[in-house]
Amino acid sequence: MTGSTPEPFTADDYRARMARAVRAAEDAGLAGILVAPGPDLVWLTGYTPAVTERLTLLVLAAGQDPVLVVPALEAPDVAHAAGAPALTLRDWTDGKDPYAATAALLDATGRFAVSDNAWALHLLALQRALPRSSYVSLTEGLPMLRAVKDAAELARLAAAGAAADATYEEIRKVPFGGRRESDVAGDLADLLRRFGHSQVDFTIVASGPNGANPHHEAGDRVIEHGDMVVLDFGGLVHGYGSDTSRTVHVGEPDAEQRRVHDIVREAQEAGFRAVRPGAACQDVDRAARAVITGAGYGEYFIHRTGHGIGVTTHEPPYMIEGEERPLVPGMCFSVEPGVYLPGRFGVRIEDIVTVTEDGGRRLNNTTRELVIVD
Amino acid sequence: MTGSTPEPFTADDYRARMARAVRAAEDAGLAGILVAPGPDLVWLTGYTPAVTERLTLLVLAAGQDPVLVVPALEAPDVAHAAGAPALTLRDWTDGKDPYAATAALLDATGRFAVSDNAWALHLLALQRALPRSSYVSLTEGLPMLRAVKDAAELARLAAAGAAADATYEEIRKVPFGGRRESDVAGDLADLLRRFGHSQVDFTIVASGPNGANPHHEAGDRVIEHGDMVVLDFGGLVHGYGSDTSRTVHVGEPDAEQRRVHDIVREAQEAGFRAVRPGAACQDVDRAARAVITGAGYGEYFIHRTGHGIGVTTHEPPYMIEGEERPLVPGMCFSVEPGVYLPGRFGVRIEDIVTVTEDGGRRLNNTTRELVIVD
Repeated sequence: MTGSTPEPFTADDYRARMARAVRAAEDAGLAGILVAPGPDLVWLTGYTPAVTERLTLLVLAAGQDPVLVVPALEAPDVAHAAGAPALTLRDWTDGKDPYAATAALLDATGRFAVSDNAWALHLLALQRALPRSSYVSLTEGLPMLRAVKDAAELARLAAAGAAADATYEEIRKVPFGGRRESDVAGDLADLLRRFGHSQVDFTIVASGPNGANPHHEAGDRVIEHGDMVVLDFGGLVHGYGSDTSRTVHVGEPDAEQRRVHDIVREAQEAGFRAVRPGAACQDVDRAARAVITGAGYGEYFIHRTGHGIGVTTHEPPYMIEGEERPLVPGMCFSVEPGVYLPGRFGVRIEDIVTVTEDGGRRLNNTTRELVIVD
Repeated sequence: MTGSTPEPFTADDYRARMARAVRAAEDAGLAGILVAPGPDLVWLTGYTPAVTERLTLLVLAAGQDPVLVVPALEAPDVAHAAGAPALTLRDWTDGKDPYAATAALLDATGRFAVSDNAWALHLLALQRALPRSSYVSLTEGLPMLRAVKDAAELARLAAAGAAADATYEEIRKVPFGGRRESDVAGDLADLLRRFGHSQVDFTIVASGPNGANPHHEAGDRVIEHGDMVVLDFGGLVHGYGSDTSRTVHVGEPDAEQRRVHDIVREAQEAGFRAVRPGAACQDVDRAARAVITGAGYGEYFIHRTGHGIGVTTHEPPYMIEGEERPLVPGMCFSVEPGVYLPGRFGVRIEDIVTVTEDGGRRLNNTTRELVIVD
């Protein structure tokens, strides 16, 4: 376990978040926010129901208390959520129409932001119940709602980063050559849990040519002497995400392997240095990409430079060309450039970075030099 | 492990399912089906990507080959799916608009069925890309698409039922009194895995007053002598679901406990006997409910009588008042009446049943008599 257990969020914390969300919706000209089970609902209420075909929906709108529409069967479970005292429950029983009940809570001609992951089943039924209403995804309508983290959230993200760093310090010591990727991935999962992760979300071990696929997870391939190995791992600590990548080499690397690793390391550094309040998200991508393109590997950097992190490990803001919104203190996201040489190898280096008042601060702090493993 | 490993589904199996789905859409007057990651996509292609904000969508429409729109990063993974040879891939890279690419595959004025669990993010973007198109959820537009199981699917569901039955035979033998619900739930999970489940989805242990909440899972309550205990557990075996409930008693039950259990058992039997081709789904609910209502406990049976099961443990058909569609041979669903007495105890008895040519066949076959445990 890394660090101490933080104070749990209180009903007042959730009440404040919901009030902030309502204000953000008003500022954006929206009539309200419809929140589906998943990360938005966790962040706003602490409630995590099983996701089924039965409608559970938090309705946030100006001038009314937050209402949670919930299947009657599940209503008793809501009381266990820390945010429950800030909610009014509207339960419904099987056979009744929950959409009519929800529609009655909404401005019939309003425009609403709806959780990205709300089910089409529910959205289509609401569109039919209120044909003059309109909808926009939360990511489009209020993209930065969860993006700026408060001090308590930052403490959790820092703890998650420290736990991931402790994992990297240990995984460097295990044997790689002659073992399957899946074996090393198992070690990563064990270490993540040992250092405080309640949930392991991904343990990528991409060796040799598998490293050239950024989304390779871990397979049966036996890692060989001479392989580059991309490690990318993370999960949840106290409900907040970790996500870090390092690329190691089994034995001594050749000149090109070392050169590509140097380029990616410089790109990651350039991306990090571009982080400061007021810079556009795309500036981080451009800064990292310029290094790789300048070195002649631009066509092999085939993904965006970063994604936000919080109660999920993939959320706004995105560090991508075209994302012109500004960085704001408290935002947290990955800076993770990579080079992927098909059929040969890949390199990726990733830290979580938070925006400070005058720049950026890394939440991952293990060495970014190329580490030689056995 | 229960039984032998079935032959894997082949590309031809998936090709046939996709062709069947296209025909069903045409018969329903739909221009096609848009399939999101999740059970629909598993059933149609065998492909199970991680679900993220990046669009992955299978487009099925008459007169064209099945097309899978997929993030370029994930395209290499599709090849591992058994249905891959039956798919044409249309990949897209970060920064490009996947909705325009998808819209180009669709009839701009068509009406499409879309997976219930497709994200609102994606549906809203498609609605905007094709403002003259319209959408209906798959459950509403083609509710029975996955409902009728073929022989290979029935064999998997029967294996899942047998594995759940083996679990019940063993859990009867463990001590209940003096242990926490969560301890018995842990035993259930271990047994489900031991008997062949690759995934455990739920292990409900609802003792004493907790039994009166149909969705109570398992908590810290210490089970006491004299408690009724509702057990409801299941997961996946070879990709298909199990789901069975039995209610046991710690020591000798009193007269009312025994009477309520008898009523629920008779209701379950009546529901099962109502299963035959051509009967309406709601007839199964009515038959079970009539027994409980007739015995004076109607107000305490607070959920529908059953739900379909297949690659998920909750899917059409639903055994509920108002569901007038007919039962068809090959359908599989739960018959699970219950009585829930607030503050006191609950009873539920559940089998998975499949519709045969002339009636029904249970896929769970452990005793439905009240079992006394220690």
